[in-house]
Amino acid sequence: MTVNLGIDVGGTGIKGAAVSADGALAHRSERATPAQDMDAIGGAISDLVRELADRCERDGQTVGAVGVACAGFIDASGSTVLFAPNLAWRDAPLKARLEASVGRPIFLENDANAAAWGEFRFGGARDADDMLLVTIGTGVGGGIVSDGELLRGSEGIAAEIGHMRVVPEGIRCGCGNRGCLESYASGTALVREARELVSGGSPHAGALSDLCGGDPAALTGQMVTQAASAGDPAATELFADLGRWLGEGIASMVALLDPELVVIGGGVSEAGDLLLAPTEAAFARQLTGRGHRRQADIVLALLGNDAGMIGAADLAARRAGAAAGE
Amino acid sequence: MTVNLGIDVGGTGIKGAAVSADGALAHRSERATPAQDMDAIGGAISDLVRELADRCERDGQTVGAVGVACAGFIDASGSTVLFAPNLAWRDAPLKARLEASVGRPIFLENDANAAAWGEFRFGGARDADDMLLVTIGTGVGGGIVSDGELLRGSEGIAAEIGHMRVVPEGIRCGCGNRGCLESYASGTALVREARELVSGGSPHAGALSDLCGGDPAALTGQMVTQAASAGDPAATELFADLGRWLGEGIASMVALLDPELVVIGGGVSEAGDLLLAPTEAAFARQLTGRGHRRQADIVLALLGNDAGMIGAADLAARRAGAAAGE
Repeated sequence: MTVNLGIDVGGTGIKGAAVSADGALAHRSERATPAQDMDAIGGAISDLVRELADRCERDGQTVGAVGVACAGFIDASGSTVLFAPNLAWRDAPLKARLEASVGRPIFLENDANAAAWGEFRFGGARDADDMLLVTIGTGVGGGIVSDGELLRGSEGIAAEIGHMRVVPEGIRCGCGNRGCLESYASGTALVREARELVSGGSPHAGALSDLCGGDPAALTGQMVTQAASAGDPAATELFADLGRWLGEGIASMVALLDPELVVIGGGVSEAGDLLLAPTEAAFARQLTGRGHRRQADIVLALLGNDAGMIGAADLAARRAGAAAGE
Repeated sequence: MTVNLGIDVGGTGIKGAAVSADGALAHRSERATPAQDMDAIGGAISDLVRELADRCERDGQTVGAVGVACAGFIDASGSTVLFAPNLAWRDAPLKARLEASVGRPIFLENDANAAAWGEFRFGGARDADDMLLVTIGTGVGGGIVSDGELLRGSEGIAAEIGHMRVVPEGIRCGCGNRGCLESYASGTALVREARELVSGGSPHAGALSDLCGGDPAALTGQMVTQAASAGDPAATELFADLGRWLGEGIASMVALLDPELVVIGGGVSEAGDLLLAPTEAAFARQLTGRGHRRQADIVLALLGNDAGMIGAADLAARRAGAAAGE
């Protein structure tokens, strides 16, 4: 049996697993991310790949392709990390470095693209041909599959959907611009709004204030989710606001892409209907041509944090096959 | 020699021509559009196709495929006009109707998609693999080519780029929503702003006021272009405003699509650098990740009003070939 390896490089951890042809995971393992040190991160990835390959081979499995998903702009050839905001990589030749260290071909992919491919092949969009993944975590990311193919763009950096501008002269974004969707529809935005609410001392914010012991800086996204799940009106409103921005942003993306299905993933999507219901309502109210077109379904992602590993492994297998002329 | 026929159905005229394999046009002909009468429009298209086919055959040319571009949502199978705002068609089975009348296979396409394909194959983007066409006319339309293929979307109605929302609670759009790009970056927006300026009686609007004899309702887009071309500061500012909205909107689209090239077409693009210069400046200021990526070029369309006919004919030839298993 041949398995492929999928690695997902995040800001705090590097996760890896063997992925079978039907998307199932085995031999999970993990390393801490040596932050801000490109050489050390490369070393940790190589070490993880070697560990996984050894474990697979001891189990009698053949290791096929190796895919590595990481945040940032990956160039069109899948060789170089052009820019990774949270990892301090600039024009880093990660593919060549890993291949030299591991002795196997490595295929790089942007983490949101890899997650989109995972959801497309084995998750929430496994029955669709055209899909858009929107991930709501610290930031807003995404991936696009059009007619069964990942849309990577000319430079390999398509689907930077968190950086569509939704408000002229709006809130400053980490990318340097103002008014990006990410500044309104991310987990960071949710916490910012919740902290402002608590800081204001409104009696409406009582439950949130209690959860953080009256210290706005101690408030987390999990606390907001917890309060909303328990029925707190203020926390529920914060999710409603986030969902409205998200649904309206999705309406713009659907005007461009006309996907069959929109899949919502990322940590904040674990709030489920608290997020999905206002998102769907805003989308239905904002989609251009509504009433004269089928309205794309919006569903929750199914693969959670495994989507990137699964997608990276499956994309690597496809690319290795294509490279071999299969 | 085999030629394909391209037909472009507009709100006032139906144009057609024979299109050779290298995109050259011959045997141009035209009919007036019998507005709001679906049966009569179908009859006029059929009549035009028969005329063109007769003329080609008299010249010893074989007529291959027939492509028809028209405004509106065309379904994914290319059979039905789901919704055409300016032609009053709703779920109109145009393909079947034309085929019954003409006795040849007909391939329908949205007019902006057809124009994008024309520019991609033979016009401003003939050397690109990934491109975005933005047409600035009465409205704002567009077409997307990704990795050499027209991106039609799951329902065939992708690239409705004029209906991305750029201003929450903004100006009402013809689509029913508020704040669409079309409400800020179209020829209609240009004329609206110019008329407001003249109505206000500002001395700054003197040249524009003179051109329309002091009657704001008589002011046209051509007059604004004429004044700007002659160096009138107020008219130049109106183009600068339009270009800013356009360039900022393109930055959002490029964040999603990462095209190699953006082609600007449509009637307003005839203003050339008056539009292009502020568009490029705003795009360069707004593109996310600038400095860490190649900046897509923005160029003017080359095929003018012929792009739709050329693209419709070439797409029809490809689809006829695919249907025949070539």
